[in-house]
Amino acid sequence: MFSDKRMRSPNRLEELFPARALEEEVDRRYARVRARTVQLAAPLSEEDNCVQSMPDASPVKWHLAHTTWFFETFILKRHESGFRPFHRDFEALFNSYYNGIGEQYPRPQRGLLTRPGLADVHAYRRNVDQRVHELLEKRGDDAELRALIVLGAHHEQQHQELILTDIKHLLSLNPLRPAYHAVQAGAAGPATEMKWMAFDGGIVEIGHGGNGFCFDNELPRHKQYLHPYQLASRLITNGEYLEFIDAGGYQTPGLWLSEGWDWVRAQRLSAPLYWRRDDGWSEFTLGGVVPLSPGLPATHISYFEADAYARWQHARLPTEVEWERAAVACKLQGNFADDNLFHPQRAGGRGLQQIFGDAWEWTQSSYAPYPGFRSAAGAIGEYNGKFMVNQYVLRGGSCATPRDHLRVTYRNFFPTSARWQFSGIRLARDN
Amino acid sequence: MFSDKRMRSPNRLEELFPARALEEEVDRRYARVRARTVQLAAPLSEEDNCVQSMPDASPVKWHLAHTTWFFETFILKRHESGFRPFHRDFEALFNSYYNGIGEQYPRPQRGLLTRPGLADVHAYRRNVDQRVHELLEKRGDDAELRALIVLGAHHEQQHQELILTDIKHLLSLNPLRPAYHAVQAGAAGPATEMKWMAFDGGIVEIGHGGNGFCFDNELPRHKQYLHPYQLASRLITNGEYLEFIDAGGYQTPGLWLSEGWDWVRAQRLSAPLYWRRDDGWSEFTLGGVVPLSPGLPATHISYFEADAYARWQHARLPTEVEWERAAVACKLQGNFADDNLFHPQRAGGRGLQQIFGDAWEWTQSSYAPYPGFRSAAGAIGEYNGKFMVNQYVLRGGSCATPRDHLRVTYRNFFPTSARWQFSGIRLARDN
Amino acid sequence: MFSDKRMRSPNRLEELFPARALEEEVDRRYARVRARTVQLAAPLSEEDNCVQSMPDASPVKWHLAHTTWFFETFILKRHESGFRPFHRDFEALFNSYYNGIGEQYPRPQRGLLTRPGLADVHAYRRNVDQRVHELLEKRGDDAELRALIVLGAHHEQQHQELILTDIKHLLSLNPLRPAYHAVQAGAAGPATEMKWMAFDGGIVEIGHGGNGFCFDNELPRHKQYLHPYQLASRLITNGEYLEFIDAGGYQTPGLWLSEGWDWVRAQRLSAPLYWRRDDGWSEFTLGGVVPLSPGLPATHISYFEADAYARWQHARLPTEVEWERAAVACKLQGNFADDNLFHPQRAGGRGLQQIFGDAWEWTQSSYAPYPGFRSAAGAIGEYNGKFMVNQYVLRGGSCATPRDHLRVTYRNFFPTSARWQFSGIRLARDN
Amino acid sequence: MFSDKRMRSPNRLEELFPARALEEEVDRRYARVRARTVQLAAPLSEEDNCVQSMPDASPVKWHLAHTTWFFETFILKRHESGFRPFHRDFEALFNSYYNGIGEQYPRPQRGLLTRPGLADVHAYRRNVDQRVHELLEKRGDDAELRALIVLGAHHEQQHQELILTDIKHLLSLNPLRPAYHAVQAGAAGPATEMKWMAFDGGIVEIGHGGNGFCFDNELPRHKQYLHPYQLASRLITNGEYLEFIDAGGYQTPGLWLSEGWDWVRAQRLSAPLYWRRDDGWSEFTLGGVVPLSPGLPATHISYFEADAYARWQHARLPTEVEWERAAVACKLQGNFADDNLFHPQRAGGRGLQQIFGDAWEWTQSSYAPYPGFRSAAGAIGEYNGKFMVNQYVLRGGSCATPRDHLRVTYRNFFPTSARWQFSGIRLARDN
Repeated sequence: MFSDKRMRSPNRLEELFPARALEEEVDRRYARVRARTVQLAAPLSEEDNCVQSMPDASPVKWHLAHTTWFFETFILKRHESGFRPFHRDFEALFNSYYNGIGEQYPRPQRGLLTRPGLADVHAYRRNVDQRVHELLEKRGDDAELRALIVLGAHHEQQHQELILTDIKHLLSLNPLRPAYHAVQAGAAGPATEMKWMAFDGGIVEIGHGGNGFCFDNELPRHKQYLHPYQLASRLITNGEYLEFIDAGGYQTPGLWLSEGWDWVRAQRLSAPLYWRRDDGWSEFTLGGVVPLSPGLPATHISYFEADAYARWQHARLPTEVEWERAAVACKLQGNFADDNLFHPQRAGGRGLQQIFGDAWEWTQSSYAPYPGFRSAAGAIGEYNGKFMVNQYVLRGGSCATPRDHLRVTYRNFFPTSARWQFSGIRLARDN
Repeated sequence: MFSDKRMRSPNRLEELFPARALEEEVDRRYARVRARTVQLAAPLSEEDNCVQSMPDASPVKWHLAHTTWFFETFILKRHESGFRPFHRDFEALFNSYYNGIGEQYPRPQRGLLTRPGLADVHAYRRNVDQRVHELLEKRGDDAELRALIVLGAHHEQQHQELILTDIKHLLSLNPLRPAYHAVQAGAAGPATEMKWMAFDGGIVEIGHGGNGFCFDNELPRHKQYLHPYQLASRLITNGEYLEFIDAGGYQTPGLWLSEGWDWVRAQRLSAPLYWRRDDGWSEFTLGGVVPLSPGLPATHISYFEADAYARWQHARLPTEVEWERAAVACKLQGNFADDNLFHPQRAGGRGLQQIFGDAWEWTQSSYAPYPGFRSAAGAIGEYNGKFMVNQYVLRGGSCATPRDHLRVTYRNFFPTSARWQFSGIRLARDN
Repeated sequence: MFSDKRMRSPNRLEELFPARALEEEVDRRYARVRARTVQLAAPLSEEDNCVQSMPDASPVKWHLAHTTWFFETFILKRHESGFRPFHRDFEALFNSYYNGIGEQYPRPQRGLLTRPGLADVHAYRRNVDQRVHELLEKRGDDAELRALIVLGAHHEQQHQELILTDIKHLLSLNPLRPAYHAVQAGAAGPATEMKWMAFDGGIVEIGHGGNGFCFDNELPRHKQYLHPYQLASRLITNGEYLEFIDAGGYQTPGLWLSEGWDWVRAQRLSAPLYWRRDDGWSEFTLGGVVPLSPGLPATHISYFEADAYARWQHARLPTEVEWERAAVACKLQGNFADDNLFHPQRAGGRGLQQIFGDAWEWTQSSYAPYPGFRSAAGAIGEYNGKFMVNQYVLRGGSCATPRDHLRVTYRNFFPTSARWQFSGIRLARDN
Repeated sequence: MFSDKRMRSPNRLEELFPARALEEEVDRRYARVRARTVQLAAPLSEEDNCVQSMPDASPVKWHLAHTTWFFETFILKRHESGFRPFHRDFEALFNSYYNGIGEQYPRPQRGLLTRPGLADVHAYRRNVDQRVHELLEKRGDDAELRALIVLGAHHEQQHQELILTDIKHLLSLNPLRPAYHAVQAGAAGPATEMKWMAFDGGIVEIGHGGNGFCFDNELPRHKQYLHPYQLASRLITNGEYLEFIDAGGYQTPGLWLSEGWDWVRAQRLSAPLYWRRDDGWSEFTLGGVVPLSPGLPATHISYFEADAYARWQHARLPTEVEWERAAVACKLQGNFADDNLFHPQRAGGRGLQQIFGDAWEWTQSSYAPYPGFRSAAGAIGEYNGKFMVNQYVLRGGSCATPRDHLRVTYRNFFPTSARWQFSGIRLARDN
């Protein structure tokens, strides 16, 4: 039909998920990531592992199986000679959303899968682990294979974070309010004073540029024009967010996006997820219920709430360009899942604080392809691109993110009403 | 306001749930029923025990706990000196629907209760068992106490049936189609020929009249006027129901009640629950998937389907008076839960067959109070009366009913769209 | 399949809807009923005529067209030589629910039919009227034809009542609270004292027995066994119902059927439909908003509310047998649509009052076929039988019922949550 | 709380909606726009004017009243001395979404307002018109007043477009498929050949920059960095879109955004809104049903469909920067509402065709504030900003847009599933 349709050359997987200069051997990384997942699920009973608390969340057991399915389907099935599936029904059962692979078991029913049992899923994990190791011994010099295993390890690290947020949601709905682990969020002292940090505008580059691994949605590195702006030096605290509540924030339509206001009223919301007001305010954490600590970052905040809070402060949320441009100068350190605290900690230090770890930071940027974005061919191409609508970008990782999973160019994304992730608020404003 | 309002005398529990002439000691009955419940749950994993497949069904673990709660709340709390609850949160957590007791944990969320774990619930059972036995030793001659324990044992037997039907529903949704037990429904030979049995009309009495235990909804025994009628000699078989399907029954609006037709179209139904057509027809049973056996009774049929089938046969469903009047002449024997088959068996013998056991039989009688019906005072009074609207009566018990739980006057009831019980069709017509 | 299936002889329409001894010529009745419908719609604008306020209600224009469609489809199409439809699309457009006729326009979308316009629908009415009159002149001695026209006239009278209740619902949702007509419900004095009237039991006969017209659901006349009972001498008043509200009736679960309690909480109900509490209580009527008059009957009450009120009074609702047995001794007179008041009036006189007219009286009887009930063959057979499930019987007519439409054997029926009809409460209790 | 919170100076309305250099006197523009609205509603009956076809659409009568309400509330109430409302209930009744004004009548119930009648609404219009003209005569030199009247006129022009799209939706649901006007979409010849037009990248400026009127969301004019790109020379035609359908586009998940695919399956879609396949394809237009013309632009396309079509073509949708940068060189001419055709016409001419008029063009740009965006103070500030989430920008106007309402910087926006606007597809790709 078109006069000059051009053929697109097939995308090379290694280009879309580059991982040339890894600081660690692929097999060591694989083993480490896989063991950590098992470790995260260890405090949970068979029942905790099995149940699904809402359609957006998945059972922990499902995460254990699905991450394994990823290696079996995208690596063993392609590269193992004489491949035979561990179980013929698992391909459909543990496929999350890859239409290119075939039919999927319906997401809202993942909690119904009492079989296979937890022991069977762990056997599945061990079986696939062994086969991947054998494959790596034989074929470890295959660049695509290595790229796929690194991709699978990062995929599994994403699910490690979901294991923590999904189990937190499930336990929060239990009237017994059980703790996931024994560490309690401390009654922190006051946070540092919030200051405004100014940044220049002009043409900047964002997106992944180096040799290390990244997801396709961080590519290509490209130019954008930036106007001068300011960022808050740290995350908004519980105490600051309480002022918004006390000032009638949840009853003032003028502070909200129209869709946000409808949502607040329909859901009858008056505080962040996991907050409860009895005599005083308390917060459910992975360490159980604790009194709300004013100096800790506010978390489990939706985009709608973050945006309303910012408007109340005559400020706004940053764009992802603004965020990345500022963050690129910071060291990639902070309170991550590796610290085993699983709750944001109070800000300390000077300059831009809490850029990495603690809580994902909502940006006002809709999740969209970068100019020149390309998807991988085949089912792997469904990894990111097909979600680029009606979601907003979060940056910087959280206390549930593995430290070596994150990059300054990393783009997380959720719908505007999502609250069960460790998401918080950093303000921005025009210079 | 009223000129001559009369005081109602308080209802004596022993009168509403009479159990004067029990054939077995109360403590033996208690022990036997409680042990049977544990036995029924034994083949299931912790995960199977925990999950809820739909709002109408409950997790097996919840049944284990709720039946225990019944004894703790209605017996120990009233009669045990120095009563202290096993766990202070269990009163609300395992209250099913007794508003008189207080708030209830929401029914559709019972499956979220991964804690207390299965082991804790079994400990709860053992604790209550011991305290009940001790109480019986001390106070076994208290008529009300004995009546309550017998009521609690019958209540638990009702939940034994639900354990079987609820776990069947859960397992059926698992693509692995796991079996509950190893017994498979046999490929039966043909059923006996269906014959019409004629019965006289006139003034008859129905309802419970003896000394043994009955539920309040079976009282009082009372007169009704009956027109001459006929009953089919046995239940409708799979083969007969298949003829209805093959004749386009699910596509013919004229055969259905208006609400039933809307339901069939909205749910896109074309066969009973658990039937599946691949190459041939198969049926999911508690013994796993088996080829559909034409000679076995059709079961997991809704009222709407039973009514449509009857209309297609130029027949109708019996009223509960017609049913009871005919059944009263039959021996109380049949295929019950005690047989551990958990599936209807083919009809055999002569005369009225399958009146008891195999499958509950839908009647066209709306579930309503008998003339002169009275509820017990207090929360126990919520047992039956408040459900007497928009449900229809089923009679005769099923392959999942404990034999000594049933009586000829027993009234079961479900909404017109319920299909997950072992419910079947016996036809009636005017003489 | 069955050994002795018997053929059912086809039902004769004249038998199922008998109208042998009419007190009025068929053509005069036809003309009178048709003119009355137009008169009832006359106070309404084109817009009022067109809009549908909820799926349960229909636009007045639709009622005008559908009642005409009934005559065109069931009479002209069968009996007119050289029949040609007024408009080829109207057969589907104005078919309410007769699957035997073919597809229907979806009920919840009736309000979208801005075309045909009101003038076109009146033209349709006039056209069909003329053709029916011509047909009657030629074929007026055809018994089936006459039976069908009488049936059609009664059908139209049912829709006359719906015109009033549906337009009341629509106008009530308009913040301007417009009146349908200028007559206001008067500020009545106190009602008569409520007394209990006692009735004997024994074998009684109910159902239509004479030669005049009746609907198929009133047949056959048959015996029932009745226990002695009492009926309240009049309907419950607004003042009496207010006591129930003030006593916390809508906040006390123990007074409600379980399904009713769920409904009250889901709908957040605290008073009958059309009641509003500002400074004092007011009520929306077809004459506009008026202060609530304590002496008038409470109306627009659901079954759930009627049942809860009765339980609060240690009473119950009557069965339809009890009602008919008592009503058969009363004169068929009262406050009907012919009085053009369109609101219940206060009780007066002695003995059983308000049995006919004022407000339909909920019975505790589920809407079910009488023993020996038969439907007509063909689409006309869908008139009543297919609704006999999950609805409850109301008796006695209302202030919106045409007087000569009613009989003592008349059975109206609605679901337990319906409130937009003129439905009220008469108490009963055991003797 | 913050160390250096800065005061925001109040926004001057004239700055946010600038209209300094109007080419026409304000009073003439007012009169012209108001008369055109009445003209557009003239072909419709009272019933057509009253009914609401879905929550997203409004009745035409409501548009007539709400646009009048805008002048009464934002202009007369502020500026008229001795202001008294035309009707005390209209302020709430015809408030669309301005929380700053007070409560609003629920949007999904706008169709229930049979009162005020159409004649009353026209009287309301005439009353407000007269008062606005009198006010302008007295106070015509007040810059804010003039700015508000120009804003109100543009607001009314937006509703003129909605009158056409909303009535089209309503009429399309009527089985009689009535036409709004007599003009039929012609059976067009083939469209021009589609060519790719290349454009340079670099730093560009977009947003409104002149003195004429614009909406606040077009401000401020600002720099963006653009990568080289190509645009299709014209809109996608029906014929081209049919190829997508015939190639199985609606059955191929890999072509769709994940949320789009869920939407297609849930809605069971297989063609654009208003298309129907009987013997051949036809399309419902404001001139009635016509055979689908392959050469005309495809319209009533959702974002999801536009995006899927583009992916099938190995192309993408343009960003709004790309679109505006290319369009700025085109003359503002095309097929607009002024042409009274109310349907897209086939492409003709050379170079970039159909940039203005015919059909709104989806961009891949999420609707977001421009850098430096400010809202007006008070209720007027709710005009645009609060909708900037989960919607996508459309550009270029349509056959239902008044010509002098549009600008090259104009930003329209709708959710990704909206189909009832005249929305179409222009492809883009990287250079």
